[in-house]
Amino acid sequence: MTNTPVTDHRFPDAVHMTEVGPRDGLQAQSCQVSTADKIALIEALIDAGVRDFEATAFVSPRAVPQLADAAEVIAGIDPARRTRATLGALVPNLRGAERATAAGVDAMIVFVSASNSHNLKNLNCSRADSLTAFQAVAEHARSSNTPLHGAIATAFGCPFEGDVPVANVVDIARRYRELGIRRIALGDTTGMATPALVRERCDALHAAVPDIDLALHFHNTRGIGLVNVYAGLAAGVRRYESSLGGVGGCPFAAGATGNICTEDLVYLLHECGIHTGLDLDGLCSAARRLQEMLGERLPGQVMKAGPRLRLSTMDSVATACG
Amino acid sequence: MTNTPVTDHRFPDAVHMTEVGPRDGLQAQSCQVSTADKIALIEALIDAGVRDFEATAFVSPRAVPQLADAAEVIAGIDPARRTRATLGALVPNLRGAERATAAGVDAMIVFVSASNSHNLKNLNCSRADSLTAFQAVAEHARSSNTPLHGAIATAFGCPFEGDVPVANVVDIARRYRELGIRRIALGDTTGMATPALVRERCDALHAAVPDIDLALHFHNTRGIGLVNVYAGLAAGVRRYESSLGGVGGCPFAAGATGNICTEDLVYLLHECGIHTGLDLDGLCSAARRLQEMLGERLPGQVMKAGPRLRLSTMDSVATACG
Repeated sequence: MTNTPVTDHRFPDAVHMTEVGPRDGLQAQSCQVSTADKIALIEALIDAGVRDFEATAFVSPRAVPQLADAAEVIAGIDPARRTRATLGALVPNLRGAERATAAGVDAMIVFVSASNSHNLKNLNCSRADSLTAFQAVAEHARSSNTPLHGAIATAFGCPFEGDVPVANVVDIARRYRELGIRRIALGDTTGMATPALVRERCDALHAAVPDIDLALHFHNTRGIGLVNVYAGLAAGVRRYESSLGGVGGCPFAAGATGNICTEDLVYLLHECGIHTGLDLDGLCSAARRLQEMLGERLPGQVMKAGPRLRLSTMDSVATACG
Repeated sequence: MTNTPVTDHRFPDAVHMTEVGPRDGLQAQSCQVSTADKIALIEALIDAGVRDFEATAFVSPRAVPQLADAAEVIAGIDPARRTRATLGALVPNLRGAERATAAGVDAMIVFVSASNSHNLKNLNCSRADSLTAFQAVAEHARSSNTPLHGAIATAFGCPFEGDVPVANVVDIARRYRELGIRRIALGDTTGMATPALVRERCDALHAAVPDIDLALHFHNTRGIGLVNVYAGLAAGVRRYESSLGGVGGCPFAAGATGNICTEDLVYLLHECGIHTGLDLDGLCSAARRLQEMLGERLPGQVMKAGPRLRLSTMDSVATACG
């Protein structure tokens, strides 16, 4: 940062980052990543300063074979590093929550879609039934002393229904709040968020449930994921979820990207003068290592181009012209 | 647009778009695109509503063989379509300008780098010598009645020098203004722009040369190209340059992307309630056709995912989970 940052007066000075690559990113990969590689990825991320993870999910191994080793991943993290980070896991219901606490997760995340058809497709039950079932999960979280967070999928639009009323999102947030959940993430499951929708939904939640800790989880499916973060910053949101290297994809659009890329987001935030606690060089190294693990080119840009002040020598490139 | 756009009060209602894919994009391709394909690309873009092009460059065919057919491309565009669009071309000096007007271009663009070392590398002459030589180009433009625009390369940073003082950019803009040039583009040649730099440079130019028609030309080399557009919109800038499909690349970073992607930008602008006059579906079709021409996957996202309200059927995808 050599330039004075010119930021919206509502931009926060610092944000919290949650790394979802090991769950949302790897889950979308067609190849099976080994348990050892998953553990190495999480450890490299802890070394790069990541303090909060959606590390895996305790869902049906039949439905999501990519995450069948959830307990082994949690158990395998180096204990010294483990003390520096919170390893959270998605749980769809009480059965998943019991498996998660038995595995020793540091936090659990329940999730429901803001659109009923997506919830039916994703979890094979209605939105109302999901929310009812979370009561038992919340009780289990309390009795096992495990923090519980809530995610709202399709919060900016549904691939089956199209636009999703903001009231659906507010209603679910209120239900979460009643269950004792304070940290709530809005999931842009298929990349339908826009700056206008971000502003509308954040303002509505700040008004309706002012004491929640709001997180934004964007996908870059239509190329504007980081613009949506910028809109979130202008709306005062201090927590963002992203995926190393932009690993992942979208089951609804072959070739489209999935989660926004952690290191590109960190680059943007740092250039805006916003503190993250993450080390950009360390993230880029980890992202390049992840590319090697997967044997494919990931969407992240900064890991390829380097930070903006990494200079070239004049004899290293051909004439460029403009 | 089904949602009321929530925009910064300074956001413009409409912006002008200049398509630079046929020049900046194709120039960076290692493969040679045929003259017929270049003509077909420009015609498809005119059909999708593009009204302003940086269509080619009259530079040394030895240095830039990709654009050696500049005159043939200009001559080959269907005359009926030609009347609907302005075909501009880069010219580095009087010799290039004479070739451009002989070929019948509708506008010429001179260019100089804000950092001296990039100008030396790119044009083999100092920044001062480039500016002096533009006097003859400006006279030729006047006598041939051809509009003349000016571009400032490395306006947000130089791959050899790093940060570029804003004073360099303002000085060049003043020199352009003295030459009678009103339309001035700031080029983010290697993707070093940040929202803070965009704000700083736009504000400085608006103060120093208030009557110019300012354009912003961003590259997505570090993933934040569209965020920089958003910062430009907030600074009141009404003219943007982009490349269909995000075609192009960066000679300084293997695998990194080049120009921001036209159709992803148009998607963002339309979702922000900003008029462009361009047809998003037509752009996506042209981008897919360009992918076929080049035989490679381009970075554009909307052409893969489709517009946000193109819905899926529930039996078309596997379970997604979150």
